[in-house]
Amino acid sequence: MRKLRAGIVAATGTVGQRMIQLLENHPWFEVSTVAASDNSAGKRYADATRWQLETPIPQSVAKMTVQASAPGLDCDFVLSSPPGEVAEQLELQLAKSGLPVVSNASSHRMKPDVPLLIPEINADHLSAIEVQKQRLGSKGFIVTNPNCTTIGLVFPLAPLQNRFGLEAVHTVTMQALSGAGYPGESALDMLDNVVPAIALGGEDNKVETEPLKILGRWAENRFLDASIRISAMTHRVSVRDGHLEAVSVKLKQKATRDEVEAAIRDFTSPIDELGLPSAPRPAIVVESHIQRPQPRIDRDRGKGMTVVTGPVMACPVLDFKFRVVSHNTIRGAAGAAILNAELLFRRGLIG
Amino acid sequence: MRKLRAGIVAATGTVGQRMIQLLENHPWFEVSTVAASDNSAGKRYADATRWQLETPIPQSVAKMTVQASAPGLDCDFVLSSPPGEVAEQLELQLAKSGLPVVSNASSHRMKPDVPLLIPEINADHLSAIEVQKQRLGSKGFIVTNPNCTTIGLVFPLAPLQNRFGLEAVHTVTMQALSGAGYPGESALDMLDNVVPAIALGGEDNKVETEPLKILGRWAENRFLDASIRISAMTHRVSVRDGHLEAVSVKLKQKATRDEVEAAIRDFTSPIDELGLPSAPRPAIVVESHIQRPQPRIDRDRGKGMTVVTGPVMACPVLDFKFRVVSHNTIRGAAGAAILNAELLFRRGLIG
Amino acid sequence: MRKLRAGIVAATGTVGQRMIQLLENHPWFEVSTVAASDNSAGKRYADATRWQLETPIPQSVAKMTVQASAPGLDCDFVLSSPPGEVAEQLELQLAKSGLPVVSNASSHRMKPDVPLLIPEINADHLSAIEVQKQRLGSKGFIVTNPNCTTIGLVFPLAPLQNRFGLEAVHTVTMQALSGAGYPGESALDMLDNVVPAIALGGEDNKVETEPLKILGRWAENRFLDASIRISAMTHRVSVRDGHLEAVSVKLKQKATRDEVEAAIRDFTSPIDELGLPSAPRPAIVVESHIQRPQPRIDRDRGKGMTVVTGPVMACPVLDFKFRVVSHNTIRGAAGAAILNAELLFRRGLIG
Amino acid sequence: MRKLRAGIVAATGTVGQRMIQLLENHPWFEVSTVAASDNSAGKRYADATRWQLETPIPQSVAKMTVQASAPGLDCDFVLSSPPGEVAEQLELQLAKSGLPVVSNASSHRMKPDVPLLIPEINADHLSAIEVQKQRLGSKGFIVTNPNCTTIGLVFPLAPLQNRFGLEAVHTVTMQALSGAGYPGESALDMLDNVVPAIALGGEDNKVETEPLKILGRWAENRFLDASIRISAMTHRVSVRDGHLEAVSVKLKQKATRDEVEAAIRDFTSPIDELGLPSAPRPAIVVESHIQRPQPRIDRDRGKGMTVVTGPVMACPVLDFKFRVVSHNTIRGAAGAAILNAELLFRRGLIG
Repeated sequence: MRKLRAGIVAATGTVGQRMIQLLENHPWFEVSTVAASDNSAGKRYADATRWQLETPIPQSVAKMTVQASAPGLDCDFVLSSPPGEVAEQLELQLAKSGLPVVSNASSHRMKPDVPLLIPEINADHLSAIEVQKQRLGSKGFIVTNPNCTTIGLVFPLAPLQNRFGLEAVHTVTMQALSGAGYPGESALDMLDNVVPAIALGGEDNKVETEPLKILGRWAENRFLDASIRISAMTHRVSVRDGHLEAVSVKLKQKATRDEVEAAIRDFTSPIDELGLPSAPRPAIVVESHIQRPQPRIDRDRGKGMTVVTGPVMACPVLDFKFRVVSHNTIRGAAGAAILNAELLFRRGLIG
Repeated sequence: MRKLRAGIVAATGTVGQRMIQLLENHPWFEVSTVAASDNSAGKRYADATRWQLETPIPQSVAKMTVQASAPGLDCDFVLSSPPGEVAEQLELQLAKSGLPVVSNASSHRMKPDVPLLIPEINADHLSAIEVQKQRLGSKGFIVTNPNCTTIGLVFPLAPLQNRFGLEAVHTVTMQALSGAGYPGESALDMLDNVVPAIALGGEDNKVETEPLKILGRWAENRFLDASIRISAMTHRVSVRDGHLEAVSVKLKQKATRDEVEAAIRDFTSPIDELGLPSAPRPAIVVESHIQRPQPRIDRDRGKGMTVVTGPVMACPVLDFKFRVVSHNTIRGAAGAAILNAELLFRRGLIG
Repeated sequence: MRKLRAGIVAATGTVGQRMIQLLENHPWFEVSTVAASDNSAGKRYADATRWQLETPIPQSVAKMTVQASAPGLDCDFVLSSPPGEVAEQLELQLAKSGLPVVSNASSHRMKPDVPLLIPEINADHLSAIEVQKQRLGSKGFIVTNPNCTTIGLVFPLAPLQNRFGLEAVHTVTMQALSGAGYPGESALDMLDNVVPAIALGGEDNKVETEPLKILGRWAENRFLDASIRISAMTHRVSVRDGHLEAVSVKLKQKATRDEVEAAIRDFTSPIDELGLPSAPRPAIVVESHIQRPQPRIDRDRGKGMTVVTGPVMACPVLDFKFRVVSHNTIRGAAGAAILNAELLFRRGLIG
Repeated sequence: MRKLRAGIVAATGTVGQRMIQLLENHPWFEVSTVAASDNSAGKRYADATRWQLETPIPQSVAKMTVQASAPGLDCDFVLSSPPGEVAEQLELQLAKSGLPVVSNASSHRMKPDVPLLIPEINADHLSAIEVQKQRLGSKGFIVTNPNCTTIGLVFPLAPLQNRFGLEAVHTVTMQALSGAGYPGESALDMLDNVVPAIALGGEDNKVETEPLKILGRWAENRFLDASIRISAMTHRVSVRDGHLEAVSVKLKQKATRDEVEAAIRDFTSPIDELGLPSAPRPAIVVESHIQRPQPRIDRDRGKGMTVVTGPVMACPVLDFKFRVVSHNTIRGAAGAAILNAELLFRRGLIG
């Protein structure tokens, strides 16, 4: 089988590097093009990037010449994670030029015909693409993955919403440094400290709204949000990778602690049978020790694609509480986008 | 004025060291005796302790000979912070021997005639001492201060309970290393990590119960707990000093955000007029920037005795949310005990 | 081929865990027995150990029952890393009972008939085993690997000694937390700090003496030390794995910077042709950027078995200077011992 | 006495903040003007700066309007720490406009008529000012303090040079984050890591050359460098404040360990009798424990102005070795400049 050719947009960034790392030896995709901002364009990729990962730059990519991020990239689809200020226009141009754009950026996530996709959870939202293509007047389109903190949160929420209905969700996050990109946080701010309200609260807002779309439905050509009240308080901590969240939930139906934990543990997905190469098995692991999960110990489960929760406990204020750890640049960003591309390929939407 | 002579029990520990540091140049008290476990007894204090603080050991204390922790200490009252397994019996013996015991340990906190005292908040709970003395058959008695995490939490809660009534409180903590004593946490556990469920959840339990007694009333010779549902999830982070908590509250009466923030900002206490040397003015500061408070920046306010909150924000799940930082070994432990002793002195209960 | 059965002594420790991790899927060896101190003996391995590594405990080992560390272990050879106070007698007993003991402990390293072995550097030192067997009156014997800091240092030194002769070596180390075992250093000591003089200077002493034996010769039934003056100043830093050393050398023969760097880069070993499974290819990598090597970026090269140096620079005081990073629990401990066992096997000394 | 009015240039930077902090309640000087880059000019100081220190911004400074850094500042002298690329021209303009410029910047340090001043060590170098004034044709002039790493190193070296003569000095540094200014190092680079070769080796070069001028003589209208070979290898570690250096020295005259340690311990200075407010007494402390000094424990000695060494030990390669810690933004920068200004005032060179 000829591999599909992926163009990496914002290839020198933290998420772009992870995409390149994760695509090395991918069975379906290969990196055909790396694109970045104008002051990187024209350089060898190895020279243009400050590589942050423990494994070396894949040989084939290291020697590629970085292209400018613009329509005309030589690829079958784009994996995109540009910074917020340029993402909206750039991704729109790429899609209008006919390319499928699989994006990690936030600009288009909440658009009324753009799927905010987690394959295990809302694969049916892909139906929105047809509507979107008509709007854009192109065979190209945009599919997005959620914010890194949203993804970890939504995994345990999805089975609870399905089985018992969610009335309210309260999450307090302790997020990793890599979520801010490079150079990101100053070492002087982080040593011996915790910094609240990531992005001056912008992160809180994403976590309070994105799950409503993800857990909602696509019906009659539009998204119907789930009806859940969500409160988020975000914090940056001195951890390289792996977002930890302390979550409390109020359910619509009564349930016992055991039933709630079982619902999370037994999570299965309609896409399990598709054999997507990046889909972890299982997607969620429930650790039983009260001091789990921990970012350093649990972030790499399932090659960073498995979400790990701790035990479910009674909450004296809402109904139940538990913690969740997910790898923010793999499950929450680069791996999420690649898994989205894999689903699109299986569904015949790219390739 | 002759200074009252304080005996420090568990003088070589993290909290004992802070007590000694804070009593240097104290206007009312002086350290007359340092006591510790048997394998320190007999040594010079400077040799028996692994001093952790930036300021040097006070000269007069450095050369003292460490006594065994047992009745018969040469002092007017005891400042005590022994480890949990010995605290209960030891403090009981000390009180029965006739000494006022001002304790930071948890063993006696929830006893029905032992004040769980924060002078600014529940000074009237001292009335329980009379009942306690009768039980012990001694002029000695025990007064305790709350857990370090409880103290920081209760400061903003107290004015909310007074003005609006509290129905529910949800707190997620990010706690400092010094809270675990020395050597405490392994550097291997803490580097690049966050550890949940301090003391295997024992810490959560203290934070969920102690505020009920503190915010309750002493009436008809017994404590009546406040009726508030509290949920706590605790975590240890790589911070030396300063516990950060992300707090959400549900009020009994309706209130606006401005009213709630004003209630916290305008907190005053009946003891403000007593001129206690360790009482901070103000007791609470409200910072308006959304990324405050932070442990490193805010823990030393008011010489570590002022509690700092951030702005009050609407909570989509409960009513309001905010963050609080307090210095865990000063406001939350050593300074709390000394302030308790100061109040006892002013009230004529020691000296 | 039947795999040789390895008994892991001190299997629950930091180095023992690495040995078990590295032996998973080893082509020649398999773990047949795990032994530890008496209070672990009798428990399931998974219950007796506080596993520190990112990969899970190998299934076959997790369910083994921990044995007491004593003669009679069911295995073909022992991989041993007991704490200093018990190592000497225990390893002697094991060897006298007929077992080959491949040790990471320091007790026997400097004994006059015990090889202090780095296969790439002094494989010929194995000749001492015959003499040792006679002393012990056993077919068992002891082979040791050097201290973790010594190993990283000796790799670049070996080719310099061979080509130019070494007159003096000055090293200042910045060593990782895992070198102290678990729980090891207190997080309170390490946060915002560097701690000098590891093991109260005992570490400095090992680094100043062990290289003399390693770079020396076995001749006429005894070891002749190399004649090099070595000065070491050791420090513990907040790094999980990977010891960094800043090294200056004075050579006996004149050489240019390029010649010195080439000597290190072109390092080859007589054992390269043996195809030992854990032998890295290459054994040393020279990075050319002045800000390399760094512990986090370079420790995992060659699965943690490759030693990484930075560029060679002129030293105004001695002749040349450079930095070196090596993974202290792999190249410097568990991997070193396993590689020693592989060499023993190839030479027909075990199996 | 009317206080001299100090103008702070680069007042919003890490060193400028320390200068403002240290001048609060200074007996001789007061801050009259704060200046910074054009995009801060015109703002309130409290709004223009991201204050990093634990103590609050002094009230009188918080409300000042930031001026542009340019001649015409309303002050009696300037305390200056501009970034390298603008320092040279700016400080020259300020001096030519008639102002004494007490600078922490590196641009003018090695100029042939600019004192590189440490008052305790080379106060006689102030004689160069007369020559400089003639060159500039102004009553203004420039006096500089050394690089933060140089200062800590030179303190123990000065008495050794005086008593025994220094032939060679080898230093390996472990430097604090605050030395890089704010935001400085990325938290992603520093967590679980050490970064070698500060400023791509530029820092090494300063440390190898500045001591030669400081320990040299002003004679016949020019500086004669000391004749010492110095080798420096610099590293950045996860420490907020306090540079640690591991130093080895070769002496010209023979000396015992005790004599060398005594020479450092007994360091006195001609300026001790001047009663300069910021001069620490003593200037150097020698700690006897082998695991001292440590950055966190020793950086704040003498309000950050005292340099702390550990015990002197024999060095197998050179003659002796020891460690030194100094507070890089106080003793090594802001406090150094203020002490320089105090000496200038006492000598009648400003005011």
